[in-house]
Amino acid sequence: MMSIKDKVAVIGVGCSRFGENFDLSYEDMIVEATYEAYQDAGIDPKDIQAAWLGTVNPEVGSCSGKSGGSLADPLRLFDIPITRVENYCASGLDAFRNGCMAVASGMYDIALVVGAEKMRDSPPNDTLVASVWHHSHPLLNKGMSYIGFFGMSANKYREKYGLSDESLARVAVKSHHNGALNPRAFFQREIDVKTVTDSPMMAYPLRLLHCAPVTDGAAAAIITRKDLAKNFRNDSVLVKGLGLSVSTGFNINFNPDYDFLTFRSTQIAARQAYEQAGVKDPRKEISFAEVHDCFSITEILNYENLGFCQPGEGTRFIDEGVSTLEGDLPVNPSGGLKSFGHPIGATGVRMIYEITKQLQGKCGPRQVKNAKLGLAHNLGGTGIAVGVTILGN
Amino acid sequence: MMSIKDKVAVIGVGCSRFGENFDLSYEDMIVEATYEAYQDAGIDPKDIQAAWLGTVNPEVGSCSGKSGGSLADPLRLFDIPITRVENYCASGLDAFRNGCMAVASGMYDIALVVGAEKMRDSPPNDTLVASVWHHSHPLLNKGMSYIGFFGMSANKYREKYGLSDESLARVAVKSHHNGALNPRAFFQREIDVKTVTDSPMMAYPLRLLHCAPVTDGAAAAIITRKDLAKNFRNDSVLVKGLGLSVSTGFNINFNPDYDFLTFRSTQIAARQAYEQAGVKDPRKEISFAEVHDCFSITEILNYENLGFCQPGEGTRFIDEGVSTLEGDLPVNPSGGLKSFGHPIGATGVRMIYEITKQLQGKCGPRQVKNAKLGLAHNLGGTGIAVGVTILGN
Repeated sequence: MMSIKDKVAVIGVGCSRFGENFDLSYEDMIVEATYEAYQDAGIDPKDIQAAWLGTVNPEVGSCSGKSGGSLADPLRLFDIPITRVENYCASGLDAFRNGCMAVASGMYDIALVVGAEKMRDSPPNDTLVASVWHHSHPLLNKGMSYIGFFGMSANKYREKYGLSDESLARVAVKSHHNGALNPRAFFQREIDVKTVTDSPMMAYPLRLLHCAPVTDGAAAAIITRKDLAKNFRNDSVLVKGLGLSVSTGFNINFNPDYDFLTFRSTQIAARQAYEQAGVKDPRKEISFAEVHDCFSITEILNYENLGFCQPGEGTRFIDEGVSTLEGDLPVNPSGGLKSFGHPIGATGVRMIYEITKQLQGKCGPRQVKNAKLGLAHNLGGTGIAVGVTILGN
Repeated sequence: MMSIKDKVAVIGVGCSRFGENFDLSYEDMIVEATYEAYQDAGIDPKDIQAAWLGTVNPEVGSCSGKSGGSLADPLRLFDIPITRVENYCASGLDAFRNGCMAVASGMYDIALVVGAEKMRDSPPNDTLVASVWHHSHPLLNKGMSYIGFFGMSANKYREKYGLSDESLARVAVKSHHNGALNPRAFFQREIDVKTVTDSPMMAYPLRLLHCAPVTDGAAAAIITRKDLAKNFRNDSVLVKGLGLSVSTGFNINFNPDYDFLTFRSTQIAARQAYEQAGVKDPRKEISFAEVHDCFSITEILNYENLGFCQPGEGTRFIDEGVSTLEGDLPVNPSGGLKSFGHPIGATGVRMIYEITKQLQGKCGPRQVKNAKLGLAHNLGGTGIAVGVTILGN
């Protein structure tokens, strides 16, 4: 098997503002993110030869997003191939991965990858559409929910290794600190540990401020082959590894033996990406990471499952400040899902946006030091599909 | 731009029976098709390094098929990357296209592509789920339907070029003739012109027997790089071209100037595939084709849009028997969507199955003569996304 390493370059990125975008439609946000990426790459829309759209539920249970047409229509980007990719919350990184492989194969010189989701205008939980959808949901129809699942993870972690309310809260505090430095983040305000521990209980021990918000947003990336990248810019960023693993079914999550701490798909997708990128010791070689912090406990488990520390050492990792902006391995300098927001299909591509900008040294007050190799981690469902992408200079 | 030509080989194919499979679940059909493909390629499930699933509505408005997990679960195919691709009725060929580019990029040695759809157990039109979905459908919510759209095509064709009821019926008669020779087809019985012209009117001038049926089914293909193919078999089939175009939005279909005869996405996807395959004159060089005959008129328009004949000559093409099994350019030797059936996401991969078997000379009574270059054409929506794939020896 040949490696993808250094075959594909990111030459432009764009990102809409994330948040409650009641004044922007799904299509508006796609246009905003993509035209910023066009400008960033210095290209014209007609230069795009193929595109990928990562999106999950543009409208729950509806026809939106069922084809590449949902990207072609708002961008007037016709007469090229456009593929719609869906892989739960990992849809964004998987769209990016498919785009990169197509470029690496030589089929297209310049390609566009967009992730987008409109969530704040979705039908609320008490509507018929939502109840129909929920009835068929593999977790919800068993009386489970995502926060219930990750609440179980936190309880299992506490039982096995110990977990203080303060450690758990520090993840959210860090995310909000970074988000406050980021003009596009959903939440741009600092919070302290007490604000988190005083916030309403959602699923013990997870409180409101441990949870990523429901968000509208879109992000875009433009890619080309490495040998063509210098025609566009001198500071393009290279794709080093593209991992994806579908490692557990919902039936495994419901296995009574499941420990709720091991996300096998994260471990395997990371192993694929490390091997491709030639990373032997992620703790030393990865400069910074954007990880899928849907809940505070998930970020702690991600540290361990990505090999940034040993199992059970995740809390020390946050307590000792290793993952802060000033730490040895900054995690979620953007503010993460918690503070930047989490429009499902957009998140993976938004991570590519952040990592590219960090590697280019363009992140101002939230810039990490010595950004050489950045990792993006995008977790779908309860770990059913996970993408890990590594970019570098 | 480099060509995909002769980089990727199909080393195994499988296909469930198509029809009203009330005794088989979505998952059962995936298992049936995939295990036949494993056996055909002589490989073990653990040899699969990555997979793609093309599926549209495994359950309308539900969570099924929202990730690669929907393929991993029934096949117990864990710890590898699996991408779910959606592009309306072209989902099958687009899944195949993405899989081929990934293999051509060198990322994976052996990959699996599956298309599947469970349609006969879907909620009927008068249920809440269906009404919610229909309400959001870009055609249906304007009082239009697919058969209404293609009925318009037939009326426009008649007005511009003339179109007899007999010519239109002959397409269905040919499909049923071929399907009667195919042990896996949904409808395995001959019909005559009178049966078609006597069948109930659906959307003038399209009658019941002009329409592809609502079908359950799954199909699978296993691909590898050309240089590895000889390790598996001597009669593997090579990928010559992979076109896909998203050329019209629903807004264009509703443009008052639209002629209902030109499927720009078919023309452009075909041009891409012909260029990649080095085909200069499709009428002379393509040995046979599997085209998207969702309605009889669509097949006639496909002849023209694919360049098998000039605009307005499609009826002569069928009247003179050019597209019959014994003709110069046999079309839909399998029986096509009309007779083999049309489980949406499965159809494109089922075409790959048929073309591979034809190129290997394994089609018994429905075998076409001198099968050297076969074309698959998979049309999504009202021509919003179209895939054209060319395979050859």
